[in-house]
Amino acid sequence: MSIPTTPPSGFRDFLPAAVAARHRAIETISRVYRSFGFQPVATSAVEDLSVLLGKGGGENEKLIFKLLKRGEALDRAQAEKTELADLGLRFDLTLPLARYYSKHGSMLPHPFKAFNLGPVWRAERAQKGRYREFTQCDVDIIGSDSWGAEVEVITAICAVFSALGVDHPTVNLNDRTLIYAVLDKAGVPADKRTAACVILDKLDKVERAKVLEDLAAEVGAGAAKTLEAAMMSDAPDLPLLKDAAPAAVERLERIRSALQAGSKHPERFVLAPSLMRGFDYYTGPVFEFRHPALSGSLGGGGRYDNLTENFGAPHTPACGGSIGFERLMLLLEDAGKAEDPGAPDAVMTVFSDELRGRALEVSAALRAKGLSVDIYPGIGKLKNQFKYADLKKAAYALVIGPEEAARGVIQVKSLKTGEEQAMTLEEACARIAARA
Amino acid sequence: MSIPTTPPSGFRDFLPAAVAARHRAIETISRVYRSFGFQPVATSAVEDLSVLLGKGGGENEKLIFKLLKRGEALDRAQAEKTELADLGLRFDLTLPLARYYSKHGSMLPHPFKAFNLGPVWRAERAQKGRYREFTQCDVDIIGSDSWGAEVEVITAICAVFSALGVDHPTVNLNDRTLIYAVLDKAGVPADKRTAACVILDKLDKVERAKVLEDLAAEVGAGAAKTLEAAMMSDAPDLPLLKDAAPAAVERLERIRSALQAGSKHPERFVLAPSLMRGFDYYTGPVFEFRHPALSGSLGGGGRYDNLTENFGAPHTPACGGSIGFERLMLLLEDAGKAEDPGAPDAVMTVFSDELRGRALEVSAALRAKGLSVDIYPGIGKLKNQFKYADLKKAAYALVIGPEEAARGVIQVKSLKTGEEQAMTLEEACARIAARA
Repeated sequence: MSIPTTPPSGFRDFLPAAVAARHRAIETISRVYRSFGFQPVATSAVEDLSVLLGKGGGENEKLIFKLLKRGEALDRAQAEKTELADLGLRFDLTLPLARYYSKHGSMLPHPFKAFNLGPVWRAERAQKGRYREFTQCDVDIIGSDSWGAEVEVITAICAVFSALGVDHPTVNLNDRTLIYAVLDKAGVPADKRTAACVILDKLDKVERAKVLEDLAAEVGAGAAKTLEAAMMSDAPDLPLLKDAAPAAVERLERIRSALQAGSKHPERFVLAPSLMRGFDYYTGPVFEFRHPALSGSLGGGGRYDNLTENFGAPHTPACGGSIGFERLMLLLEDAGKAEDPGAPDAVMTVFSDELRGRALEVSAALRAKGLSVDIYPGIGKLKNQFKYADLKKAAYALVIGPEEAARGVIQVKSLKTGEEQAMTLEEACARIAARA
Repeated sequence: MSIPTTPPSGFRDFLPAAVAARHRAIETISRVYRSFGFQPVATSAVEDLSVLLGKGGGENEKLIFKLLKRGEALDRAQAEKTELADLGLRFDLTLPLARYYSKHGSMLPHPFKAFNLGPVWRAERAQKGRYREFTQCDVDIIGSDSWGAEVEVITAICAVFSALGVDHPTVNLNDRTLIYAVLDKAGVPADKRTAACVILDKLDKVERAKVLEDLAAEVGAGAAKTLEAAMMSDAPDLPLLKDAAPAAVERLERIRSALQAGSKHPERFVLAPSLMRGFDYYTGPVFEFRHPALSGSLGGGGRYDNLTENFGAPHTPACGGSIGFERLMLLLEDAGKAEDPGAPDAVMTVFSDELRGRALEVSAALRAKGLSVDIYPGIGKLKNQFKYADLKKAAYALVIGPEEAARGVIQVKSLKTGEEQAMTLEEACARIAARA
């Protein structure tokens, strides 16, 4: 069998322009998070399976790429028919952060404002737009139960979108405790909660009438009607919601008002009582970023007050959000904002092996002035070297032949106009820097 | 069993100051590589096992963290006692680059100058300073058989060290074909080549007399004596080397002269006939960076002309090098160059929930002026908020109480001098920016 040249299904290679665009976006995200006082953290890609599975295991287990045990441990596992894997690849950045904080919390400021950018892996079936390896950009505040934490996380993420030139997204706001209170109020028994949530969560993808029908079948027509009024309307029944969970609604209103006061787009912060956000670990406010050009979400997050307890750490309130980096890059590409400005200022051609030394010297001098200079790495016809300069989208090609070397000058050719002229190093530097 | 809070053996968490230092180093490395016209590439962390194992398999197999098959594929593999894994984590960036180039070469400039920064994983026993997850910083030129490619790769890596403020390392130069020619010349039979190389490779770690003794036992006293003269002396026997492999020595001399001509430290480019560099795939010149403060190498590389053939691509000359990023970070830490300048300019305290809106507004205005402002994310005594500001190493703490809010001013407190003064937003901005 021949060795494949494509990455495994669901994994990707990136061509240089795409890598450059991704690096630039990551740098902008870091810079913005930092400007809010968030500090970078990093954890290993590989975790003990017990960290990834948590107490529950269940749903998460299917997501995990597990690492096969090695050597004697593998032989033993096979002989004894026990677990073949002991480690796995992280599938999000939140569980590792909870572990990290449980371990290092005493050495960190309190509350701790963290950001974490990096790849995660999920053993899901690969689909268009859904990958098995993708980047997450998380921002979290650990150790604060104030609604100010939600405001800070959401504001920072909105500032990232703005810095990247992405239109302000709609921010949908809800609260897990509100959802549960409304279900109670509607008379949905505790054992049907999850089923009802799963149905309501499909409002995005499934027709409204179908959702109502499924709800009625699951919890009865009366309860379905109450849920419709409370959670499925464009103008949610605020009195009903307040009656069900006054504290949760008041907190949401405070968060929303603060966000609106700080924004040029106050109408884009919306109460969305049917918003679920999948993860089990949320315990309070949840939020989601929506953009008209995307069918799914552009990111989201919520409050998770119990996550460090899994690690034997004391109860720690926490709240965090994440940007859907792959979707963000799609938006930037569509808007032409992912274009590659990474072309070198100049390509230095190499006339002969004997003159390579002079080419190296001049290139080093130009780089010392802050220019990027790509020396042609081989030897060959000048024609091919000019073609290389075109492919690299360089602004200038430089030639130092025997005559130029003897006179101490450089032939500078603009690849835009085709003009060329011999000049000194200083002149060449000025010309190239000015793109003149 | 309680869930562990430490990463698995050989894996690491990084505290914020370390992450910031690593990010800064990565950004500098990218910038320098880019200034030489190298373009960024990225490949998946996960590869088909056949890509990682290549034709040979052998030594590499032990390095690979393999991913357990999933679902039905796993059941089938267990029932049929076939391979339990189909994928693995990359253990270097060179094999993935060869695959990448074989796939995408037609869309890339020729020759292709690439750089690739990212984590790799090795299932080795963890030791002090040896990790199972670490970062590599590769730079490669694919499609050139000119010695100019070696010069370019080595110059770019030296420029990285210089940009990071690391003393110019010693660069040891050798050639695989020269090693083999000298072994032939000394009368070492082909089937003892590898054993002799393994012994010579230990010159770093093992006493010279012991190396000679082992060599004599392996290849005979006469051959050992020739090898000693040719490869183990501080002043290598150039005539002997030239006689054994004239073309290889001429190429090395050209590389060395060009490097010396472009450097302020010409004496640091050294012919080192016993230098091996472990990987099987090298076919020509090899090189290694050494720093007096480190016992091992700070990086290295070489020419690998046959690697794309594994993927059915035509014969493609290539040459590349890699910086030992973890060792580099050790050097930067020792030199105090990894210090964290990531402290926010100011911490904005929050006087009360009612005044949080005003605090948010002022913070946003200061950030819009390019300052980093960390809003205290909770609510609490001002004393605790000042303590938080100290912990974050902020230069200023800002207070907006009811009086300041009414007067439209901000109380600005220098955390260095303890002085405080009420001032307008514009004045505060100027004061903070000037660190006055």
